[in-house]
Amino acid sequence: MLHDPNKVYVFDTTLRDGEQVPGCQLTTPEKIEIAKELEALGVDIIEAGFPISSPGDFQSVVELSKAVSQPIICALTRANKGDIDSAVAALQYAKRPRIHTGIGSSDMHIKHKFNSTREEILQRAVDAVKYAKQFVEDIEFYAEDAGRADINFLAQMVEAVIAAGATVVNIPDTNGYCLPDQYGQKIKFLKDNVQNIDQAIISVHCHNDLGLATANSIAGLQNGARQIEGTINGIGERAGNTSIEEVVMILKTHQNLGLNTNINTKNFYEISRMVSSQMRMPVQPNKAIVGSNAFAHSSGIHQDGFLKNRENYEIIRPEDVGFPDATIVLTARSGRHALKFHLERLGHNLSKDELANAYHHFLTIADRKLDINDEDLSLMMRELSSVAR
Amino acid sequence: MLHDPNKVYVFDTTLRDGEQVPGCQLTTPEKIEIAKELEALGVDIIEAGFPISSPGDFQSVVELSKAVSQPIICALTRANKGDIDSAVAALQYAKRPRIHTGIGSSDMHIKHKFNSTREEILQRAVDAVKYAKQFVEDIEFYAEDAGRADINFLAQMVEAVIAAGATVVNIPDTNGYCLPDQYGQKIKFLKDNVQNIDQAIISVHCHNDLGLATANSIAGLQNGARQIEGTINGIGERAGNTSIEEVVMILKTHQNLGLNTNINTKNFYEISRMVSSQMRMPVQPNKAIVGSNAFAHSSGIHQDGFLKNRENYEIIRPEDVGFPDATIVLTARSGRHALKFHLERLGHNLSKDELANAYHHFLTIADRKLDINDEDLSLMMRELSSVAR
Repeated sequence: MLHDPNKVYVFDTTLRDGEQVPGCQLTTPEKIEIAKELEALGVDIIEAGFPISSPGDFQSVVELSKAVSQPIICALTRANKGDIDSAVAALQYAKRPRIHTGIGSSDMHIKHKFNSTREEILQRAVDAVKYAKQFVEDIEFYAEDAGRADINFLAQMVEAVIAAGATVVNIPDTNGYCLPDQYGQKIKFLKDNVQNIDQAIISVHCHNDLGLATANSIAGLQNGARQIEGTINGIGERAGNTSIEEVVMILKTHQNLGLNTNINTKNFYEISRMVSSQMRMPVQPNKAIVGSNAFAHSSGIHQDGFLKNRENYEIIRPEDVGFPDATIVLTARSGRHALKFHLERLGHNLSKDELANAYHHFLTIADRKLDINDEDLSLMMRELSSVAR
Repeated sequence: MLHDPNKVYVFDTTLRDGEQVPGCQLTTPEKIEIAKELEALGVDIIEAGFPISSPGDFQSVVELSKAVSQPIICALTRANKGDIDSAVAALQYAKRPRIHTGIGSSDMHIKHKFNSTREEILQRAVDAVKYAKQFVEDIEFYAEDAGRADINFLAQMVEAVIAAGATVVNIPDTNGYCLPDQYGQKIKFLKDNVQNIDQAIISVHCHNDLGLATANSIAGLQNGARQIEGTINGIGERAGNTSIEEVVMILKTHQNLGLNTNINTKNFYEISRMVSSQMRMPVQPNKAIVGSNAFAHSSGIHQDGFLKNRENYEIIRPEDVGFPDATIVLTARSGRHALKFHLERLGHNLSKDELANAYHHFLTIADRKLDINDEDLSLMMRELSSVAR
């Protein structure tokens, strides 16, 4: 497969792995609205659903296929004909369809989920890819629970499914178990040992159970993977999937990795709010990139440094992710420099002594009140000037 | 310094780096309540505040010093006598006091924040440690913005402050800039090149601006650091600090790292809820370890595998972090196995054909309704049995 070696494909599964979360279910029109925003964001692949799982999900894949034209539309299946037939039918209107089929690859899953053997599972994997390939050219294979799979068996499985026609091989850390160096080594091993690996793109699909989904995805990309699967706001099963916004902004901030995506990062803030609101999944204020506090500077030391030169405490410009401007919030931990900034904004230009006096009053107010707004400052200045008179 | 080489010290800064966040300010009694829970959790060090910053913060350090006895109580200062004098006074009742002093180490901070030179900053660092050491034995030094500092200058600074009496050297990634392999390499470089490094403990203090705080902290520990600084729920300036619960559970899950802490992990859920509620900082449902969905299985594939053997999809037992039991939630993405589980729980033992029929009805209900509760199931079963009659 010919492609730019520095291009990382972004595979969004907000509408599949995200949407299956308790409370996150969407109607088809809501899914279409999000899909159009994902298209504007510039994702390369939209996983639209798991057609066999319910009539509503089937219909959503049909309607999303009609509604968007740029991204590849992908449908999930297990490794069996019924699932694949359903996905093929659901994808009939997709301009660029992809089927995402797969099966467990760890001994834990092979034994305790499928009650099967490695040989049998390998055969089912190959059969599924070959069957799907009759209907759709672009076939992604997922080796479920690859994070805990025996690495030699995993390599054998990957080689076999590529030979059977898989264009993308997805190495999921289904349970969010791996450490970044471990996960990176797995990808490197496949890159080094699977003979036909260059005929497919390696995809990373990580879960956040230990808080490592983003780091594992980056480790995978550093070792040769070129597709990253994730969701907006990192929603998804249990502790969620990789946050697309985090991975994309890491690649943008660390230019020396030499990797780039098609993402319009200025759209992140808006799509984050849309997904949060439609799926009823709050984003915590301290969420990286899109949390409401992500660019807020509050302590005196930080505010002072930030006002001298914003790069002292800012590695991403908020406007690069479509964020309202970085905010200097006044609290009991703020310093003189921040108070001066806000007083000047309100038209009060104070001498050094006046500022010292105002700061003293400010602190007594701020110890009683959570945060200080313009009204509080104006009131304080009126009180101070009436004392002075 | 003699200590167990496999022991990782946990330094909690929820009440300092966390508390300075807009909206998170606490009264002294609220801080005492959290500090007592942190003591029960088993943290080794509590950073209680930044005494010079406000009268309220000073008083909190005094009261916390009286209220808890096990953990070391630490107070933050900048590298000047006024700050240190204030910290010494605030710590007067602490059974085990620590002063945490420091200064910028990156050229960005030296030039654009301090308008100074490397030589001058180095002198100020050494002077501050020597001054603080006259009053308190346990001195932690932070090299602010170490994540972007020249590595040779950083090593020089670390060696100088250890020689001046620092017992702990904190290497903060102040802006959350580093990738895990970069940050790990920094720690390794210090371990390999600072002559007196074994006379101090290396501490990791990471921020989450790119979603990498946890991974960077682990990379630091893998390369020789033995203290980790963080907060409950990862609250803190901007996108927050390292989540203590994530790092501790990684060490517990990955026993082969050979590192352990004193933390009573069963207390995590309760303290997470307390901090969230008192500080008015919501925890998103997909937060690792402590989010409300962290152990919830919703898709059919996952529920089926989970019910066959919970280890198929669970790497941490919810009870190990004090979590209410893992939940099987019923939605339109659930499978037959999950429906059977809940119907049996409600006293309905169905044949295979009956289950297939019930599942068909269940899906049409679930496509309309976000999640299906016991009442919905009972209603469905009454309808099905009246049709059958």
